[in-house]
Amino acid sequence: MNQFIRVNMTTMQITTEAIPEKYAGLGGRALTSSFVNDEVKPTCHALGKNNKIIFSPGLLSGTSAPNSGRLSVGSKSPLTGTIKECNTGGLFSQKMAKMGIKAFVIEGMPTDDKFYVIKIDMNGVTIDEAPSEIIGGCGNYDAIKILSEKYGAKVGIALTGPAGEHRLPSANISFKDPEGNIRSAGRGGLGAVLGSKKVKAVVIDDTGANAVPIADIDAFRAASKVFAKALLDHPVAGQGLALYGTDVLVNILNEAGGLPTHNFTDGRIDYNDVISGETLNATITERGGEGKVSHGCHAGCIIRCSQWYADKKGKYVTSGFEYETIWGLGADAGIKDLDIIAYIDRAMDDVGVDSIEIAVAVATAMEGGLIKWGDGEAVLELVKQMANPTPLARIIAGGCSVVGKVCGLFRVPVVKDQAIPAYDPRSVKGMGLTYATTTMGADHTAGYCVSGNILKVGADIDPLKKDGQIAYSRAMQIGTAAIDSTGMCLFVYFGIADSPAGYQALIDMLNAQYGTSLTSTDVDKLGEYVLKVERDFNKRAGFTNAHDRLPEFFEYEPLPPHNVIWDFTPDEVDEVFNF
Amino acid sequence: MNQFIRVNMTTMQITTEAIPEKYAGLGGRALTSSFVNDEVKPTCHALGKNNKIIFSPGLLSGTSAPNSGRLSVGSKSPLTGTIKECNTGGLFSQKMAKMGIKAFVIEGMPTDDKFYVIKIDMNGVTIDEAPSEIIGGCGNYDAIKILSEKYGAKVGIALTGPAGEHRLPSANISFKDPEGNIRSAGRGGLGAVLGSKKVKAVVIDDTGANAVPIADIDAFRAASKVFAKALLDHPVAGQGLALYGTDVLVNILNEAGGLPTHNFTDGRIDYNDVISGETLNATITERGGEGKVSHGCHAGCIIRCSQWYADKKGKYVTSGFEYETIWGLGADAGIKDLDIIAYIDRAMDDVGVDSIEIAVAVATAMEGGLIKWGDGEAVLELVKQMANPTPLARIIAGGCSVVGKVCGLFRVPVVKDQAIPAYDPRSVKGMGLTYATTTMGADHTAGYCVSGNILKVGADIDPLKKDGQIAYSRAMQIGTAAIDSTGMCLFVYFGIADSPAGYQALIDMLNAQYGTSLTSTDVDKLGEYVLKVERDFNKRAGFTNAHDRLPEFFEYEPLPPHNVIWDFTPDEVDEVFNF
Repeated sequence: MNQFIRVNMTTMQITTEAIPEKYAGLGGRALTSSFVNDEVKPTCHALGKNNKIIFSPGLLSGTSAPNSGRLSVGSKSPLTGTIKECNTGGLFSQKMAKMGIKAFVIEGMPTDDKFYVIKIDMNGVTIDEAPSEIIGGCGNYDAIKILSEKYGAKVGIALTGPAGEHRLPSANISFKDPEGNIRSAGRGGLGAVLGSKKVKAVVIDDTGANAVPIADIDAFRAASKVFAKALLDHPVAGQGLALYGTDVLVNILNEAGGLPTHNFTDGRIDYNDVISGETLNATITERGGEGKVSHGCHAGCIIRCSQWYADKKGKYVTSGFEYETIWGLGADAGIKDLDIIAYIDRAMDDVGVDSIEIAVAVATAMEGGLIKWGDGEAVLELVKQMANPTPLARIIAGGCSVVGKVCGLFRVPVVKDQAIPAYDPRSVKGMGLTYATTTMGADHTAGYCVSGNILKVGADIDPLKKDGQIAYSRAMQIGTAAIDSTGMCLFVYFGIADSPAGYQALIDMLNAQYGTSLTSTDVDKLGEYVLKVERDFNKRAGFTNAHDRLPEFFEYEPLPPHNVIWDFTPDEVDEVFNF
Repeated sequence: MNQFIRVNMTTMQITTEAIPEKYAGLGGRALTSSFVNDEVKPTCHALGKNNKIIFSPGLLSGTSAPNSGRLSVGSKSPLTGTIKECNTGGLFSQKMAKMGIKAFVIEGMPTDDKFYVIKIDMNGVTIDEAPSEIIGGCGNYDAIKILSEKYGAKVGIALTGPAGEHRLPSANISFKDPEGNIRSAGRGGLGAVLGSKKVKAVVIDDTGANAVPIADIDAFRAASKVFAKALLDHPVAGQGLALYGTDVLVNILNEAGGLPTHNFTDGRIDYNDVISGETLNATITERGGEGKVSHGCHAGCIIRCSQWYADKKGKYVTSGFEYETIWGLGADAGIKDLDIIAYIDRAMDDVGVDSIEIAVAVATAMEGGLIKWGDGEAVLELVKQMANPTPLARIIAGGCSVVGKVCGLFRVPVVKDQAIPAYDPRSVKGMGLTYATTTMGADHTAGYCVSGNILKVGADIDPLKKDGQIAYSRAMQIGTAAIDSTGMCLFVYFGIADSPAGYQALIDMLNAQYGTSLTSTDVDKLGEYVLKVERDFNKRAGFTNAHDRLPEFFEYEPLPPHNVIWDFTPDEVDEVFNF
């Protein structure tokens, strides 16, 4: 039961075969990136018929391993032009794994103007015309309800939001989570790819599926326990994230002087209390009602970094309310109101756009004079407009790079046309190396050097200095590529970085499931293989070392309070991928 | 008197030195491209302080050689990210040459928010604050009047229009022509570069300048006569262009099935009479008044392809009313009214935007649903809005590539983010090779293969077939790079392509002026040198062969009426620059 399913939207033909031999042993990002590199023409237009999109559960997805329910989605990105892997929580990965589906590919493009729903269950794959009420502006929250009513309450759903229907470059793919709320495969515009293929939704129903086969169930359970303990024992993975969510980072980055503010002109704000994780926790706790501290994005998550934010009346507003979003709107765009930031976050989930790209684009548009600094109401209105986009909504949803173009700005915080997230590269230099060199365009999750630079987890490197950063970013990117292939949430890194037993337990689980005898060397090799595959695609798409550069202004605008600049030479930056 | 002038807008420092030895013998494009490659960091932001912009007259500019008054402007392009050379008529080139100024460079960027006027005369260079009435939306026609009143009726002016003040990617640099109307260094957004440096205008006054020194004046005069005769004897250079302007091409390309229509979905229209050169001529002639058939963009032009278009009351509307503009608005965007096209052309000159980029962006925006097909009034209003841009005006002025992004289209006719002009690459295949490979982004003037493909001047190559096109595009690009270095209008090619005597006369003029003994081999070498320099810059900026590709849809959408596709393989395309 290692199915490889293809749906061709040109011919409406469905083919199911065993996964090709060359992909044996691969899952998640390793599989999606290998496939994209093999089958997608690197110079194709990402929104044209020759692009493909692939969904793949991680190697451990569907098992009882904690935090193993992440799904990888791969394609050529319409935002960056690079290869792209996004991963997300929700229900999809575990259901695919239980159903024995290693990969699900959508290719081609219909010639008519209808949208479709692809339904996958144990009987196979069918293509329905999408219900008309979910097309043309229906928000994702409503669409999930309507599809769940039609296809069953327990189905998993991948959804093209209104922004994706319009193929806007910041459109994400929205996934139904265990409570029917929204998680996102956020970055790089893959919702626009799904929209270009006229796929409004993919619905998955695992009714009748068996448990994922495990070669040595006792060994698996033993390793799983050790692994869980490592996570729960760690102050970040086991406590901080559950209590304050990822927003715990506002105070930490602010203290470190690495919180990009006012479109990357400062590294610190004085109103951090307004948007901090501590305030988030206190607000949720105080309001009661549907608010909820500590929630997981998929079954089996024991880190539980997600928070349910409720309004003053205790009514649910949003979840998956991340630090990067709150930072972008709160610090970079100066919106000093957690409630309005929460409403904007909900609106972004509802239209289906990447909250990082939009937040950074908004701050850049403020510098460009298109929106008043700190005007949260205007931003909320603009995001809502993305469902039936006005010209200004199109500009913002075009992403930070498009905003920079139409405003004639040179202070445009992007790498490979993707917005730089919440950690200033000048004062968190390891992060800067990852932004510059990752195959994904600026992406903090591609090699989260904040860990050793700021949190001092897994390493202790001065964030303001260059020493040790090159090797560190390289190692983090390699390790991340491997983790992204397992279906594990990236945050398991916090649990295993300082715990050799925890790390060994992760490898033991893989070996127990597959009857293999992998070592940590194999894990490194897997990570390196993934990065090399991705880099090969990008090279053939026209990317060179000259694209592995941060925006020039970081080189000559010192960032307060430490007044540091980006001082890595091009040759030093190029060392990151010298392996 | 071979001055090399630099104005640093950061320090407001002016330096005048003799032209560096390494630039000896170079002029026009050869000089601007060499300089940009030497001094501009290829990965810099085109609108940041590290970009530079250089003006250089051609080698023959300022002499009595016919059609030698073109000016080259070089920089890194904010539209394409490549090196860029634009050339233009007007008064600037001849005045610079007479004043002994080989190059004028603007570098740096002020930190305040004021705009400046740089004044060059025989006493040197001064920097004035720009008159407030020409800032913030004043059209170029008025600004030229105001500056001419302030600095003298006969001065030459290079002007950043309102679009350039806003640093919009399609902003051009506008030049006062002999009658105080407007010529443009159009493509690639160099007006945005000038705007980023806060230079509203450069004013040049050659009062007191001597004639350009000529080593052998008799030989020069003799060669000049032969050269003039070659131009005047040729049916295209000597007759067609003067009578019908470049718009003579509407009927020719329509007949050839190479007139891109309705955003490149067809190669022929049935209303060609509405917008043809013949109709243009008849309309101007019939209306009388200020209309004028046959006009030159600079003193000494004997081809006189420019037309003064007048409205129904005989009042001047626009000049430099080119085929590519009329095609873009008339055929590609379906605006079936020559008067409204003329008003849009005037409005584009008045706000200072590239009429090709805008016309193609408009047609693409029509496909994207932002503007109704054929709605000329809406387009006119949008272009006027570019002076104080609304969001939609910003999108259009962002250029065709930005329009494609915010509309989620894959049918986006650009190469290196610059719009493809008026000759469909599928049915004028030589042109397609030039679009794909030129260092400039899609640019018909970089190697005008229409000549041998359609007009059968200089060569006779089947436009629908691949045979002979690679060598032809290569030769045309090399020859063009050389011509662009002489200050000659590109149209002199028509006169010399089939006339060995005319071609020799061009070389004789150069030798007579400089006391050299150049041969046609040297001319080829110069062209090759220029292209190699430009290609070197682009390579270091991150461009590879993968960027030398036409948009993918040309490969699989057959173009009526011949139903041809773009069928060059990547390897074949890469052969063009294999020299």
